[in-house]
Formats: sequence, C-alpha cells, structure tokens
Amino acid sequence: MIYKVAIVGSGNWGSVIARIVGVNVTSQPDVFDKTVKIYVYEEIIDGKKLTEIINTQHENVKYLPGYKLPDNVIAIPDVVEACKDADIIIFVLPHKFVKPTCSPLVGKIKPTAVGISLIKGFDITPGKGISLISNVISELLSIPCSVLMGANLANEVAAEKFCEATLGAKNPDTAKILKKLVQTSYFRITTTDDISTIEVCGSVKNIVACGAGFVDGLGYGDNTKAAVIRLGLKEMITFTNQFYPGAKLNTFFESCGVADLVTTCYGGRNRKVSEAFVRAEGKKTIECLEQEMLKGQKLQGPETAAEVYEMLKLKNQLERFPLFVAIHRICTGEITPKEMIDCIRNHPEHIVNFWESKH
Amino acid sequence: MIYKVAIVGSGNWGSVIARIVGVNVTSQPDVFDKTVKIYVYEEIIDGKKLTEIINTQHENVKYLPGYKLPDNVIAIPDVVEACKDADIIIFVLPHKFVKPTCSPLVGKIKPTAVGISLIKGFDITPGKGISLISNVISELLSIPCSVLMGANLANEVAAEKFCEATLGAKNPDTAKILKKLVQTSYFRITTTDDISTIEVCGSVKNIVACGAGFVDGLGYGDNTKAAVIRLGLKEMITFTNQFYPGAKLNTFFESCGVADLVTTCYGGRNRKVSEAFVRAEGKKTIECLEQEMLKGQKLQGPETAAEVYEMLKLKNQLERFPLFVAIHRICTGEITPKEMIDCIRNHPEHIVNFWESKH
Repeated sequence: MIYKVAIVGSGNWGSVIARIVGVNVTSQPDVFDKTVKIYVYEEIIDGKKLTEIINTQHENVKYLPGYKLPDNVIAIPDVVEACKDADIIIFVLPHKFVKPTCSPLVGKIKPTAVGISLIKGFDITPGKGISLISNVISELLSIPCSVLMGANLANEVAAEKFCEATLGAKNPDTAKILKKLVQTSYFRITTTDDISTIEVCGSVKNIVACGAGFVDGLGYGDNTKAAVIRLGLKEMITFTNQFYPGAKLNTFFESCGVADLVTTCYGGRNRKVSEAFVRAEGKKTIECLEQEMLKGQKLQGPETAAEVYEMLKLKNQLERFPLFVAIHRICTGEITPKEMIDCIRNHPEHIVNFWESKH
Repeated sequence: MIYKVAIVGSGNWGSVIARIVGVNVTSQPDVFDKTVKIYVYEEIIDGKKLTEIINTQHENVKYLPGYKLPDNVIAIPDVVEACKDADIIIFVLPHKFVKPTCSPLVGKIKPTAVGISLIKGFDITPGKGISLISNVISELLSIPCSVLMGANLANEVAAEKFCEATLGAKNPDTAKILKKLVQTSYFRITTTDDISTIEVCGSVKNIVACGAGFVDGLGYGDNTKAAVIRLGLKEMITFTNQFYPGAKLNTFFESCGVADLVTTCYGGRNRKVSEAFVRAEGKKTIECLEQEMLKGQKLQGPETAAEVYEMLKLKNQLERFPLFVAIHRICTGEITPKEMIDCIRNHPEHIVNFWESKH
C-alpha cells in the first residue's frame, strides 16, 4: 500500500515537520505518495496569500523563514480538501484550535486513516478534568491517533541539528510506518505503545519549568534547581500513574520525558518568564510579563498548572503534589516564590523511606 | 545505643558534612555522642597546623573558608586515633587516597562499626576492571559500607541552600540512623538499598558531562545536548544492569541519578573543560587545559571514560555503549568532537523498536 500524507497546521513546528516529511516521502516512493498536502490557515502577508507564497516560493515566510519547503509539499487553505484522501494525518497546531479545526473533518476523511498528534497541552472540560489531545482527535474523527514528542526546539530541527523524539502508537505496524515517515539521519525516533505518558510529559513539564525559573529568579543555585527538576519529574510520574494507569517507567527516560523536561527547564520561555516574575518582586503579574516578553502570547506552564491543580483538587490528590500545587499558587499570587521551598521540604519523597514503602 | 561518629577526610565536601553532622549529633543526644572526630591530613597554613586552626578557630580555612565548623567537631591528624572508637565512620576523600588512608585502620576499628562513603570514582585493578569504593572499604576494613550521593555542589550545601541526596544502605536500621545523622531541613535524604547504582551514577555521570561539554563547544544547541544527556543516562542504566545486576530503575530518578547528571552536564568542570577543548580546535589537549583551567587538577570525566572503556573492551561490550566510547576516543584525540554525533546516530536505542525488543 502507498500512503497519502496530510499535515494539519503550518506554524513553526508544522513547517519543520513538513520539511522532513516532504523529503522522506520522496525518498520512499514504495511506501508513500509523493504529494504531501498541508492545511494552512490562510493569512495575507504583504498583500499575498500565505498558501500562494508557500506554493510558489516554497517557504513559510511567516513561521519558518529562511528554510525551503520541498516542492512536493502543497499548501491548501481548506482543511477538508487537504485531508480527504489522506491515509496519515499529522496534527500540529495549537491545542486550542484542535476542535474547531477538526470538526469540519468529521465524516469527510477516510475511515481507515490514522492520525498522529504533535500537539502539546490538554483539553479541558470544566468539572470533568483533563483529556489528552490524542483522545480528543481519536474520538472526534473515529480514527486511532498516535503521538510524536521530544526535546525538539523547532528551529534547531529545521537547522538539521541532531536530536531525538519519541513516537507512541498502539499498533506496531502503524509505529513502523510513522517512523519511516518522520525519522531522518538527524531526527532520531524511538517507539513505544505508552501514548498517554508521552502526552502527559509534553504538557506537564511546563509546570516544572516554571518552578525551575523561580529557582533561577531566587538565585538558589544548581543544587536547588536539580532538586526541583527531580521532584517535578517524580510528580510527573505520580500524576501519570494516578490518572493514566499502565504508564511505563521507561517512557520517562525517552526524549519526551527527561530530555524534553531538562531542555525546557534550562532553556524555554516558561523558565524565562518565571525567572523574570521573581525578579519583579511582586510588581508584575505573569500576565503582565506575557505582554512584555511574549507580545501577549500565553505561557503554557501557568495555564497547565491551573488545569492540573483543578484536576488534583477534584480527585482529592493535592497533598501528593506539593510542587505542582506550590507552582500554581505562585503563578496566581497566593504564595510568594520563596515559599515554594517550604512547600517541598517535606515532600512525600523525603518522608517515605524505601523500606517503609516496601515492607 | 549512643553512636560515636568519625569523619575521614576534611576537604571541601568533608568540611561541609562535618558542619551538618556536628549540628545533628548535638540536637539528637539520645542517638549520637556529642563529639565528632574528623581526620585531617595535616598541612601547615601560614606557619600553623591545619588541625590546630580547626580546633581553635573552628574553620577549615583552606578548604571551606567563610563557614564555621561546630565546636564539637575535633580535628585529629592521626586516622587511627580519629576512628578507633567510632561506631559510624564517614569516608569523604579523593578516591585515590582511600587505600593508603584506610590501610592503617585495618584491625584498629570497632568490628561493629559501619562505614558510609561519600566518595565518587572507581577503584581500578589493571586487567580486572572496576571496583566500587564502598566495596573496597568494606573488604579492606571488614565492615558494611553505605553510600551518600546526590546533586550536591559543596559550597551551595554549606550555604544551606535546599537540595537532596540519596542514601544507600543494605540494612534498614542502618539507613534510619544514617539518615538521622545527615538529614537537615535544607539537605533532604531519600533512602534505597541499591548501593551500586548510586555509586555507578556518581562516577559515570562525569563521562556524560564531557559529552555535554563537547556539544556546547560545537554550538549544537539545546536539542542535541538533551539527546546526549538522555543517551548518556540510558548508557548509565545499561552499564549498571550489565555489571551490577539487580539495579532498580527507580534509583536513576533519585538525586544521585538524573538530578546529579543534569547539574553536572549544565554546570560542573568536566563540562566546562570539555567545551574549551572543542573551542581550542585541536590546539590543546585535555591535560593542557587541566593545567590552564584547574591548576593541574585532574578531571574525573576523561579518566572515568578511559576506565569504563577498558572494562567494556575486556567484556566485549563496546558496541552497546557508542556514546561512552566516542567520548573516550575524543578525550584521547583518536576522533574529533564532531564525530561524536555520527557515533550515536545509529545508537542501539534508535535501532531497536519497542516491539522488536519486547516481542
């Protein structure tokens, strides 16, 4: 079988993936159709349609300037038109746009299609808690949905610097095909069936990055930062086990886990804005800094912290996650950044002895 | 029972631990004797003996200037005198000095004493491979030897900044007492019986830190660095499983594992000198940079890489550790830093699929 591929989303990361996929389908004509259709939300750039610019100049001048897209990547402003024949649909757009963008696809795609989500973040139903984006896509479109995540700053992948990502799929054959579609000599893929863990890591790491930023802002040094990152990782594991049973400990050692966490806690804008928040000494809110530093774009960390906090409260689990809870309360101004350390001084990790928990 | 405590070693880390232990024995008189004897290798500082300075000024002016030692910490220049009555002996000195320093203690300590090693590094027997320092101490002195390691830059612990460490002990009662001896409100301890893993992590992380430094020197960015750290961690796990069966995956999530690794790969002198090595573009050897940057002190990373390489070669395991091997070969000048990435492009982690390895 020859697989037709569509991409839904053409931002920074979507454009990078289009570069990779465009090349890979060309080099594997026995597996993939040579045309890759990419759904582009139409915008006018200097009086020209973005789809036309992509289809003539072969460059996404707005979201990935300076890098050519392969000629076989065709921009299409209609999501149904882009996806209707596809056997593989790659979803790569901000998580808030998933439902409005995918709704028109209901009943209009191949029933045999498979999806793969590169989207970080949760879907929230008030009073019901968190849903994973891959589940939202899967339920909405009645197709299986795999995921691909890792320590992947988009511009570094575009520059073909060596990195890794983790691919999660329930079906081994699907995993094999998807790996063929996205792996390159510089973008190395490992596979697992532990989809939920990959996706939880991709969202929740941003909470920990805020904690790391607070430590940086407080000037507490390397040891404290390492402790916050580690306790954050442990809370990520506890959270996953609690809400997505069957998580594999090994998945946290994949690129989607420890690698992405570390990158986000040392680089990344959640860390950066959180550091600035502490240095402002109560004179600026997170929202205010988002305006100043990110031109009003929302940080994912504080938002995810609030979502996770609601979920934990709903399920009576707050006391098992003192770091997540403290970070949320710092973001909302309920406690000061300095109080974070007191919140984790008697972390469940420190109180329970190995033997006490075991015997 | 009231435990008498001795410390063998009074460098930077030894002095920090003496501060902690000195305070803790005083606040727990029902558990510990109030006097802590510390063996100090005698040196003359400005015409005065270091032991005398410590016993009168209560400060290790050479190795931990600016921080007072509690009055109940007594410096003794004779290791047998320091340890002969002790129930708990804390070993904290450079790994090369373990055998010469401990040999005089043979037959001179309480047979019921327990040891705890804070020493990072391996003991090497040419042609036989690597021994863990805790095993060396245990065999030499016929006492059980626990370990304590973590993401603990000494001066930050001295400044009482929040951090964590991992305590490994075979016996739960020993773990409990040792935790009472070293835990404080800012130095938080978790316990496990997985001693070997703690100790292997403490040494082998320095190899990975060299790899991280090479990436920094090459300017390859955050994604590549995260990949190198992650693959390094995976090789640490494989190494431990191979040579110390019974290792627990959970131990790598402790402070001794991922936290210490991350700190070492972002701060730390192995990273720093390795970055400088790349920037020197072949004009300076590691030895030369050790002279320039560390006043001739030896880096642990290249040395450990060489030791691990010999061990892997001896056991026919080189191909399972492409990153460790590449780092060793870069340190010795056999390959260039740029070649590191080609060595890990087809890492076993990327080739084996989850399903292939499982089914």
